[in-house]
Amino acid sequence: MNAVKYMGPGAVQLQEVAVPEIGPDEVLVKIAGAGLCRSDLHVLHIPEELPFLLGKTLGHEGAGWVESVGSDVTGLEEGDAVLVSLIWACGHCRACVEGRDNACEVNGSRTTIPTVPGLGPDGAMADFMAVKARHLDKIGDLDPVAAAPLADAGITPMHAINSARSHLTPGSTVVVIGVGGIGHMGLQILKATTDARIIAIDNDETKLELARGLGADVVLRSDSEASQKVLEATNGYGADAVFDFVGVQPTVQLATKIVAPEGALRFVGLGGGTFAYAADLSTDVLPWGVNVQSSFGGTRADQLQVIALAQQGKLHVETAIYPLADIQKAIDDLEGGHVTGRAILVP
Amino acid sequence: MNAVKYMGPGAVQLQEVAVPEIGPDEVLVKIAGAGLCRSDLHVLHIPEELPFLLGKTLGHEGAGWVESVGSDVTGLEEGDAVLVSLIWACGHCRACVEGRDNACEVNGSRTTIPTVPGLGPDGAMADFMAVKARHLDKIGDLDPVAAAPLADAGITPMHAINSARSHLTPGSTVVVIGVGGIGHMGLQILKATTDARIIAIDNDETKLELARGLGADVVLRSDSEASQKVLEATNGYGADAVFDFVGVQPTVQLATKIVAPEGALRFVGLGGGTFAYAADLSTDVLPWGVNVQSSFGGTRADQLQVIALAQQGKLHVETAIYPLADIQKAIDDLEGGHVTGRAILVP
Amino acid sequence: MNAVKYMGPGAVQLQEVAVPEIGPDEVLVKIAGAGLCRSDLHVLHIPEELPFLLGKTLGHEGAGWVESVGSDVTGLEEGDAVLVSLIWACGHCRACVEGRDNACEVNGSRTTIPTVPGLGPDGAMADFMAVKARHLDKIGDLDPVAAAPLADAGITPMHAINSARSHLTPGSTVVVIGVGGIGHMGLQILKATTDARIIAIDNDETKLELARGLGADVVLRSDSEASQKVLEATNGYGADAVFDFVGVQPTVQLATKIVAPEGALRFVGLGGGTFAYAADLSTDVLPWGVNVQSSFGGTRADQLQVIALAQQGKLHVETAIYPLADIQKAIDDLEGGHVTGRAILVP
Amino acid sequence: MNAVKYMGPGAVQLQEVAVPEIGPDEVLVKIAGAGLCRSDLHVLHIPEELPFLLGKTLGHEGAGWVESVGSDVTGLEEGDAVLVSLIWACGHCRACVEGRDNACEVNGSRTTIPTVPGLGPDGAMADFMAVKARHLDKIGDLDPVAAAPLADAGITPMHAINSARSHLTPGSTVVVIGVGGIGHMGLQILKATTDARIIAIDNDETKLELARGLGADVVLRSDSEASQKVLEATNGYGADAVFDFVGVQPTVQLATKIVAPEGALRFVGLGGGTFAYAADLSTDVLPWGVNVQSSFGGTRADQLQVIALAQQGKLHVETAIYPLADIQKAIDDLEGGHVTGRAILVP
Repeated sequence: MNAVKYMGPGAVQLQEVAVPEIGPDEVLVKIAGAGLCRSDLHVLHIPEELPFLLGKTLGHEGAGWVESVGSDVTGLEEGDAVLVSLIWACGHCRACVEGRDNACEVNGSRTTIPTVPGLGPDGAMADFMAVKARHLDKIGDLDPVAAAPLADAGITPMHAINSARSHLTPGSTVVVIGVGGIGHMGLQILKATTDARIIAIDNDETKLELARGLGADVVLRSDSEASQKVLEATNGYGADAVFDFVGVQPTVQLATKIVAPEGALRFVGLGGGTFAYAADLSTDVLPWGVNVQSSFGGTRADQLQVIALAQQGKLHVETAIYPLADIQKAIDDLEGGHVTGRAILVP
Repeated sequence: MNAVKYMGPGAVQLQEVAVPEIGPDEVLVKIAGAGLCRSDLHVLHIPEELPFLLGKTLGHEGAGWVESVGSDVTGLEEGDAVLVSLIWACGHCRACVEGRDNACEVNGSRTTIPTVPGLGPDGAMADFMAVKARHLDKIGDLDPVAAAPLADAGITPMHAINSARSHLTPGSTVVVIGVGGIGHMGLQILKATTDARIIAIDNDETKLELARGLGADVVLRSDSEASQKVLEATNGYGADAVFDFVGVQPTVQLATKIVAPEGALRFVGLGGGTFAYAADLSTDVLPWGVNVQSSFGGTRADQLQVIALAQQGKLHVETAIYPLADIQKAIDDLEGGHVTGRAILVP
Repeated sequence: MNAVKYMGPGAVQLQEVAVPEIGPDEVLVKIAGAGLCRSDLHVLHIPEELPFLLGKTLGHEGAGWVESVGSDVTGLEEGDAVLVSLIWACGHCRACVEGRDNACEVNGSRTTIPTVPGLGPDGAMADFMAVKARHLDKIGDLDPVAAAPLADAGITPMHAINSARSHLTPGSTVVVIGVGGIGHMGLQILKATTDARIIAIDNDETKLELARGLGADVVLRSDSEASQKVLEATNGYGADAVFDFVGVQPTVQLATKIVAPEGALRFVGLGGGTFAYAADLSTDVLPWGVNVQSSFGGTRADQLQVIALAQQGKLHVETAIYPLADIQKAIDDLEGGHVTGRAILVP
Repeated sequence: MNAVKYMGPGAVQLQEVAVPEIGPDEVLVKIAGAGLCRSDLHVLHIPEELPFLLGKTLGHEGAGWVESVGSDVTGLEEGDAVLVSLIWACGHCRACVEGRDNACEVNGSRTTIPTVPGLGPDGAMADFMAVKARHLDKIGDLDPVAAAPLADAGITPMHAINSARSHLTPGSTVVVIGVGGIGHMGLQILKATTDARIIAIDNDETKLELARGLGADVVLRSDSEASQKVLEATNGYGADAVFDFVGVQPTVQLATKIVAPEGALRFVGLGGGTFAYAADLSTDVLPWGVNVQSSFGGTRADQLQVIALAQQGKLHVETAIYPLADIQKAIDDLEGGHVTGRAILVP
């Protein structure tokens, strides 16, 4: 079979390799689609060779069909459409049994995220992939090509939104900064699962139009007046929750200026923006009492919620399809900003 | 009667003034004790004259006995021992009716904390004080002199701890940084209301001894090895929750180094320390997913919980008593670091 | 002015009375509409004369405009459209400050519900009504005639739904039994604030049509096969949450048969149906672990959420308008089952 | 090896059988102790032969040491002391990934509890037991003989208490009915993890003495005045939470009479008592708004919490040791009421 291998900084290669063998608790998945994500570019940009990834198959967003199952696997049959979990947690540590498997204490650490396929174990950019049965979820009638991005672009905003749900009661105001790949997913999730008033902010008129179509109550250009307009719309108090789906310096600054005291501030896009967090009572940077969190991935429960929304037709992902062999072109297009929606590699 | 008035930067004055008259929904409280707190020093250090405070009575931690009640007041009788609320919220905005009255949208704003007696309305450093009945809680048999600090030094840690309670299950590890005035209250609250393993850190051996006596499971000097020791005690993963009751630069840095991924980081002492919060996946400053919040005050519900703990004998405050007339000496002692426990002014 | 007075069992009378005077913390509300509810009939059916109600004005669902305000009232001005709270809680007991004001310990008791206007204090079936400012919420541009039922028919289902919200994640299934006056409000609230799959059950084809129009995913006639169909739709496991908006014997029995283990069972319609709750492991009556609660009214926070939904056009109440003078005809029509929607008395 | 087999109604037999072989994801546990519990007697009292249990080893409370591990097992080594989980959930259904594994949809159903070892799969009353690694938790230095009952007598009250935790804030009152095998565990858990005022009720003076020693604030004999005394201690309002650890008719009736409106009522002892739950507003049986739930077992997260408490010395179980060969005597003693504490069978 073919597989896209990491060969060092900036280098990927389509190689002919053996179809993986599966253990008794594993499933062989025939890949339908594998998402290409900015994190992949980020990994390729790292100037040092990553020893743990060398010669390994990329692809952390994968979906397909069950091709065969190991002897101990129950509940999955040949032909079932499945989504591969983003985070391969141990399933039995304290974090895992509490349903916080994205903070798995065994397969992750303080300085490294938990195990993710395609970033260590062989990933989904291949004809087939071997996955433990417990890292798969059935997706029923969903098209696995379109469903692949749910594994990351879906659960990441879902996890962030679930972490701020107590702030999202009817009567609350939520701001969505950035209506791009992850942001437009977040907006759909907010619309489907809350009645909060949604203010969407972007610097691209097309994306604001998209936001309006997806149900944003107010759309604003991210210009110098945006923060003032949000404050005006909230009696000067700020928004109950702000989700920054971009995370670059200007959006981080905007976010801190529009969140309410004791409000929720979530960074979902991790673009490297920063601000000075101070343990004091000044309100120059942040109003007092704001609850701040950056999200990485999500839990198995978040994943099931994302699949449920997609199955109800409430969570659409725009996709750009590339044959697996065109991996380099897909990378170049994504680098060049020429991809609309999520790039999906199809074997 | 006598009252301690703010007369401008650095200046207080004991003045003879009229006993306040009360409205139909107000209560005249005969003050038993009024706490002097670092925030008072902070206010006096502000180099500009504060117009909203000029000529007003100081004192935001007050307790005493009901002297008389307005015509519409029910549930309070002459002689009842009462604690004056720190935050005088409106009681009917969305935040208030949700039980988040410390984030009152009417009596507070994005840049100013909600109304606090002694920092605007006349406070507790006087023989008598007029308070709306709804800003008073009965304290039963508690001595109102010793109870006065519960209004601020009690509810502030309680609020921070309540905001992180989902992280404080049996089996979790919590770190208390700083076992001073507020920290030793926080430690007692954690001990009484959770079964988390408590690691207390301080740079003062006497305070570590105090921490041990109050039930800390592990005590550590805040030296260069403290962070390493916390990580060793948590399998390298970090603590589920970290409460920094100091908030100066070294403690803020320590706190960020010992909290677990998706853990809770709370700044309760607001000493002005800072760190660079980044919307990225690097773990140089903070592990991913940490939930960060600085606390200001607390809610009416927090206050009742604090009173309940004190009534059960589980929340003691060490106090240093000064006659009201010795306000300047109390200020000087506190400035000079010569006060052990909470300074209480007694009319 | 005119007011509808309770004169004993089965007897109401329109009387000419003085416009009430207001205290410093009160507001005189010019009533726009007052809902007539089955609870009113229930009260009139009680064969004994109710001394606490004799000669008092009925009407616990009221809305109108501010006519004048007492000297201590802030935040309300003449002409503001307002909704009168159903439950007049004390605002300062432990339940109230925790945001559980419907369980107020001061104005309620174990055997009596908290104070409700129209069931003790003079209610809304009159030209004017005196209300403490803290028992009023502004409703902005909402028509107060149509908004009156939000005070009871709105917050009662909202409170029940809020109490079961952890069961209503995407992927969950919720059953609505009864799409009548309260049930169709509940269905709209579920639709607006969750993504749960909604199965609506009623014995009236028109109401099932209404349910479909309001967004129910599945509608079922409440015949002998209804429980079987719900189980089939949930892999035999039952629904995550069941709301019985009727509460008569057949619906109570149906509800117990279709809720999942550890699911949420809420009785919102209080029609007097019963079942034998057993502290055992048998599953003859209920599956194990079900969480059961009957709702009465709701909290101030629930009320604000209901108003927010209505303001967004997501919560409509069908109304049947009667002049205040036609109170007896309204009662007769409601008794006879001739009212479609909520009967509203308009002065 | 020896194993205690179910041979039909009322019949158990110690048999010589082969040591079980383990699969790649399994662990062979050398049993240290296996609890004998009233549920075992209940099973033996069932007059019909249970086909799913015939010839199977009994024992659902087991602990011991790892003897050997399957090829895929990580994180467990020979000699580790371990506790066997009560509920063998699938680990991947929606309930499981949400941390509600006691409501597993795959290994359980509406009418049957999830898979429990000793009640289907071979249990712990044997020299050795084969267990999937994910159904084991390490217990560190705890003595596995004494720890065995934590699997059921520990997690069952923990789960019930965790389900009512929002009612157990400082200032609340909780009633513990029955200070027997499970009740005295519940009391210790409440004491260690909350600051609620605890009222313990029992009809046995020795057990009231035990309750006092374990920290109950008030102890009451369960006589005709008990309900009145609880109401007096709570200003007539009732207790915020009531845990009935017995569940027979008199305790169920007592429990309904002392719980507050919107309070939490939990049946943990499942003695078969009943009451008529009514969907109405009368308060003859229950005050309005009470949240009622019967507990069965608990989750993996509950289990870790129980182990953590035991490791801190805050959860003791009194035990009565029997050699495995004396199974019939242990049964007879338990039937006859001659066992103090938990009967443990030791191979």
